[in-house]
Amino acid sequence: MTAFPTVAAFKTTLATLPEADRQARAAAARRQGQLTKPPGSLGRLEDIAIFLAGWQGIERPRIERGRAVIFAGNHGVVARGVSAFPAEVTAQMVANFAAGGAAINALAAAAGLDLSVVPLDLDRPTIDFTTGPAMSVEECLAALSAGAAAVGDADLLVLGEMGIGNTTPAAALAAASFGGAPADWIGPGTGVDAQGLSRKEGAVADGLALHRDHLTSAFEILRRLGGREIAAMAGAVLAARTKGVPVILDGFIGTAAVAPLAMTNPAITDHVLAGHCSAEPGHIRLLDRLGLRPILSLDMRLGEGSGAAVAVQVIRSAIAAHDGMATFAEAGVATA
Amino acid sequence: MTAFPTVAAFKTTLATLPEADRQARAAAARRQGQLTKPPGSLGRLEDIAIFLAGWQGIERPRIERGRAVIFAGNHGVVARGVSAFPAEVTAQMVANFAAGGAAINALAAAAGLDLSVVPLDLDRPTIDFTTGPAMSVEECLAALSAGAAAVGDADLLVLGEMGIGNTTPAAALAAASFGGAPADWIGPGTGVDAQGLSRKEGAVADGLALHRDHLTSAFEILRRLGGREIAAMAGAVLAARTKGVPVILDGFIGTAAVAPLAMTNPAITDHVLAGHCSAEPGHIRLLDRLGLRPILSLDMRLGEGSGAAVAVQVIRSAIAAHDGMATFAEAGVATA
Repeated sequence: MTAFPTVAAFKTTLATLPEADRQARAAAARRQGQLTKPPGSLGRLEDIAIFLAGWQGIERPRIERGRAVIFAGNHGVVARGVSAFPAEVTAQMVANFAAGGAAINALAAAAGLDLSVVPLDLDRPTIDFTTGPAMSVEECLAALSAGAAAVGDADLLVLGEMGIGNTTPAAALAAASFGGAPADWIGPGTGVDAQGLSRKEGAVADGLALHRDHLTSAFEILRRLGGREIAAMAGAVLAARTKGVPVILDGFIGTAAVAPLAMTNPAITDHVLAGHCSAEPGHIRLLDRLGLRPILSLDMRLGEGSGAAVAVQVIRSAIAAHDGMATFAEAGVATA
Repeated sequence: MTAFPTVAAFKTTLATLPEADRQARAAAARRQGQLTKPPGSLGRLEDIAIFLAGWQGIERPRIERGRAVIFAGNHGVVARGVSAFPAEVTAQMVANFAAGGAAINALAAAAGLDLSVVPLDLDRPTIDFTTGPAMSVEECLAALSAGAAAVGDADLLVLGEMGIGNTTPAAALAAASFGGAPADWIGPGTGVDAQGLSRKEGAVADGLALHRDHLTSAFEILRRLGGREIAAMAGAVLAARTKGVPVILDGFIGTAAVAPLAMTNPAITDHVLAGHCSAEPGHIRLLDRLGLRPILSLDMRLGEGSGAAVAVQVIRSAIAAHDGMATFAEAGVATA
C-alpha cells in the first residue's frame, strides 16, 4: 500500500499535520533550566534538544535509528545545458554510494547514521519542464510514495539527493512557491559557468511561463517543475511528520522540495531543522522565506545530504548535553 | 622543567614560531581535488582537513589523542561586582567537572575527547587589576608553564576555561591588544544585568588607565590584566605550536588569551581554529581582528571549551570525508 495513492490523499495529509507533544517539550525546557549552566548558555543546543523532545514525545530525546536517505533522479531539463556534469554521473554516483566511496558514506558513518539510497527510474529522466510537465500525475504520486516508504522506523531522518541538473528544477520550485525572478533563485550549483548560469535562468523562466496557469497547488508545482527525487523528499517530509520523526534538511534542493508544501501549509516547517546553509545563493533566501535558521554554514555545496549529516553531529552534541549533564541540585552548585 | 622559566624564554618562543608542513598541506590539497565531488564542494570541511594535514605533517590527518583541557582560575576583580555568580562557583564547577556532570563532560565525551581539568590556585585569586598587576612575574610564568604542560601528547587540543568574572579581564586584554573603548569589548557574560555591565566597563577602564604605561608586551598584558587560566591558555597555545598540535579555541576568554600574542606575532593564529562564535558581543569583533572565522555560530556562551568541543564533531566529519572518500579514478565517476 502506498502512502499517496491519490492526489486527494496527498492533499489531506498536507492539510492535517500533527503537532509536537507539548508536555514533552515543556518537560525538556524545564530540564534545560535545571542543568549546571547559566540559563540559555548552550544557545541553539538547548533549542535543538527541546525541538527533538517535542517531536519524539519524550523529555530526553535520543538518536538510536538515525537514517540518511538519498533519493536519486534524472532530469530532462539537462538537455538545456544547465549542469557542468553529464547526466550519466547520477547513476555513477549511485554506484559510488553503493560502493561506499562518496562523501555521504563517510559523513553518515561519522554521524552514526544508516544510509539508504533510493534510485528513482534513472533511465527514464523526467520530461524537460520547459516543454511540458516534468511528471505525469501517476509518476509524481509514485515518487511521493517512494519517499514516504523510505522513512521506515527511523527516529531521525536526514534527507539527501543526487540528480545532475537538479538545482534548476529547485530554483523553479522556489520561484513558483515564493515568487521573485528566476535570477533570484539560480546559482552555480556544483560549478556551472556564466553561460550555464544564463541557460539555467532561461530554463526557469520558460518553465514558469509554460506552466503559469497551473502552479496553484503544491502537487502541481512538484509535478510540473520538480523531479522524482524532489517529490520523494516532499513525500518523506510528510510521512515523517505523520510519524513524529524529526527531519534534517540538507541543501537548496531539499529545502526547495518543502517550499510548495509550505506555501499550502506553513506548519510543515515546524518539524524540520535546516542542517546547513549551502553556498548556493538561493538557499539562504529560501531558508529565510521558510523561517528556518541553518545549524551550520560551512560553504558546502555538494548535496547528497552531506551538510545535514554534519549537522547531525551537532544534534548529537545537543542530546549529549541535555541527557548527560547534572542539575544544580545534583551537583551542589550555587545558582546566580 | 617548566616551559617558561623566564620572561625571555616566553619571548623567544613567541618570536620563533614554527610553520606548518608545506608538503603535507600540498598533498592533502591534491587529494581533496581527486575525491568524488566537485572541487571545493565540501567547503570549509576541505580547508579544515588541509589545515590539520599541515600541522600534523601527514596527508591524512587523524584525531587519536584529542584532548580538552579546562583551566580554572579566580579573579580579584570579582570584588567589583562584575559577575552574576559568586566566586565560589569556580571551585564548585571544578568539582562538577570531576564528577562528570558539566556540559563539557557530555560534549567532550560526544566528541571523543579526553578531558583534563587544571585548577590554578583557586584559593588565591589574582589581584584586582584595577588596584595593581593581576599577577607577579613568577605567578604569570607559572601559569604559562602549567598551560604548556597540559598539552602532553595530544594530537588535537581544545582549550577551555572556568573562572567566575573572567569576561572582564578578557575584555581588558582585547582592549589592550587591539585598542577601542572598554564598551566595545564588554558584554553580559554568563548573564550580568545592566548595572553589572556598567561595573564591568568601569573596571576595564580603570585597569587600562592604571597600567597604561606598561601594556607594551604580550607578557605584561597577560600578567597585569589577565588571570591564571588565561595565561595558561596562552602558554598552551605556544607549547602546542612548538609541537605541531592544532588548537581549537573556544569562546571570548580563550580568544582574548591569544590577542596579546597576536599583537606581538600575528602568525600565532596560523595553527588555531576558532571553534565557534559565542553570543558574547566582543567575540566576533575579536575573531575579526585576529582573522579567524568561527566553525560554528550557535549562540553558545558557556565557556568550559563547550563550543570548541562541538566544533570537534565538525572537524571529525572533515577528517572522515578526507580519509574515507574514493577518488574519481577509484570510483569510475566522470569529472566535469
